Amino acid sequence: MKVTILGSGSATPSLLRNPSAQVLSDDYENYLIDCGESTQIQLIKAKIKTNKIKNIFISHLHGDHYFGLIGLISSFNLSHRTESLTIFGPKGLDEIITLQLKYAGTSLIYPLTFFELNTLEANLILETEHLTVYTIPLYHRIPCCGFLFKEKPKERKIIKEKIPVNATFEEIVLLKKGVDVLNFDQSVKYYYKDFTYEPIQNKIYAYCSDTAYNETIAEQIKGCHLLYHEATFRQDLLDRATSTNHSTAKQAGKIAQLAMAEKLLIGHFSSRYHDLSDNLLEAREIFENTQIALEGETYTI
Amino acid sequence: MKVTILGSGSATPSLLRNPSAQVLSDDYENYLIDCGESTQIQLIKAKIKTNKIKNIFISHLHGDHYFGLIGLISSFNLSHRTESLTIFGPKGLDEIITLQLKYAGTSLIYPLTFFELNTLEANLILETEHLTVYTIPLYHRIPCCGFLFKEKPKERKIIKEKIPVNATFEEIVLLKKGVDVLNFDQSVKYYYKDFTYEPIQNKIYAYCSDTAYNETIAEQIKGCHLLYHEATFRQDLLDRATSTNHSTAKQAGKIAQLAMAEKLLIGHFSSRYHDLSDNLLEAREIFENTQIALEGETYTI
Repeated sequence: MKVTILGSGSATPSLLRNPSAQVLSDDYENYLIDCGESTQIQLIKAKIKTNKIKNIFISHLHGDHYFGLIGLISSFNLSHRTESLTIFGPKGLDEIITLQLKYAGTSLIYPLTFFELNTLEANLILETEHLTVYTIPLYHRIPCCGFLFKEKPKERKIIKEKIPVNATFEEIVLLKKGVDVLNFDQSVKYYYKDFTYEPIQNKIYAYCSDTAYNETIAEQIKGCHLLYHEATFRQDLLDRATSTNHSTAKQAGKIAQLAMAEKLLIGHFSSRYHDLSDNLLEAREIFENTQIALEGETYTI
Repeated sequence: MKVTILGSGSATPSLLRNPSAQVLSDDYENYLIDCGESTQIQLIKAKIKTNKIKNIFISHLHGDHYFGLIGLISSFNLSHRTESLTIFGPKGLDEIITLQLKYAGTSLIYPLTFFELNTLEANLILETEHLTVYTIPLYHRIPCCGFLFKEKPKERKIIKEKIPVNATFEEIVLLKKGVDVLNFDQSVKYYYKDFTYEPIQNKIYAYCSDTAYNETIAEQIKGCHLLYHEATFRQDLLDRATSTNHSTAKQAGKIAQLAMAEKLLIGHFSSRYHDLSDNLLEAREIFENTQIALEGETYTI
């Protein structure tokens, strides 16, 4: 999996950064996570295939996380989209989008479904053939949750040059699943380890946007390979972070440390910060393997 | 008056042009006309003073004309705006904005008023000390109107070096209004023409966005100094223009000609047009004094 950052700014508009939006991609789908104003333009710039976006996840109804959604939904219609789209978001999102479509006189030509999130619980909200998605309860001024993406265990890969020419399709399926193939007398015909590679590890991505520092988050996302955590402020503005239910770079580092994450990506930067090197250093003091979420950049998980 | 173009694109998102938005400015106010997605960023780029925006005019509820409004309203709050704001728009705009503010948990700290437009009639909707604004009924797929801005007649300007030293304040006020000052015996004490210049002509600006070709528009805006008229297509796509209730460059030229406008600015270009020179030539065949509405450019009226 990989994640492409479309916006790493916060609520105040700025020429430096766009509001929150990012795309998680695997071999099958592009998952759009939050959709601030201008996300559709950022998607074009990043050359993301929008017909592979089948699921959109909105963390909460502050505008810097969803004001670009109605534009994207409308543009999908203009571009003759046929693929169905599901939008996961808090209560109110369906009502807002439906009202705007009504007054625009727009009848969508593709199927659109809303899934209302319970932001207070860690619930399984999506399961595909390749991935599961859970909500992560966050601690903000309005109902808000993050999203935990877990790849499903993958099949082992066949070692082509070793596979016996007379092995049947069913036998190969068993080997890929890590099961030895037996003869009628229960003796082993093919040991799966002889004919297959170890599967690539199933990765975990945690997206935590707009939250006060809270260690219960770390418990749920324990062992994730990449954590995106908001870091609106630096530690010298801890009071402001606390009063607005946001985090500092140091606090983001602490959550990554407690979660024993592999990597940390910080974002949702206040527009007051032009140079982000001190924000990065602050997080790295706690959690070394930290990077700044740069717009247009893609990070492999 | 002068008008600054913030967006001259149409509905399909494009890296070439932003959706509709422009600012009409006089010495006193900035009037924002339409507010497509990203208008708040375009305002920053164009260095427009937003505290001088007291009135916003939304022509209709297709997203490329108003999806940037909620972001702007929210950002005004974040920037501690205190000036009151009035939004003129069709039925539904108040409901949409109010719903979005509700779910964001936002209480505005500045006074916001909605004025619901009757888009079917040419009504006076705003009168300030310096200007009047009328709706222009347009012919689109949903309720839609343009806006006619008329400067009020200005006072004559005093010729400082000629003004008698013993003239009273009241006498000068009369001269500026174009009234001769009389003695008690009704003989003329000061001829106003001797002491004042002709006033600068009061200008008229007509904004006609998203409309099928309709000659009744020309009647209402007759004699305007600048006409902004949509020209989504070129004449070879006349059928498409007709079926979508849009205009071609040639039709925009015809309306300018019929209205005996001084200048024509064409905009709202389909994203299919990269090079707009043929669009310009098509309009100029009918109406010579035509220009392309270029983003970031300011046109004096």
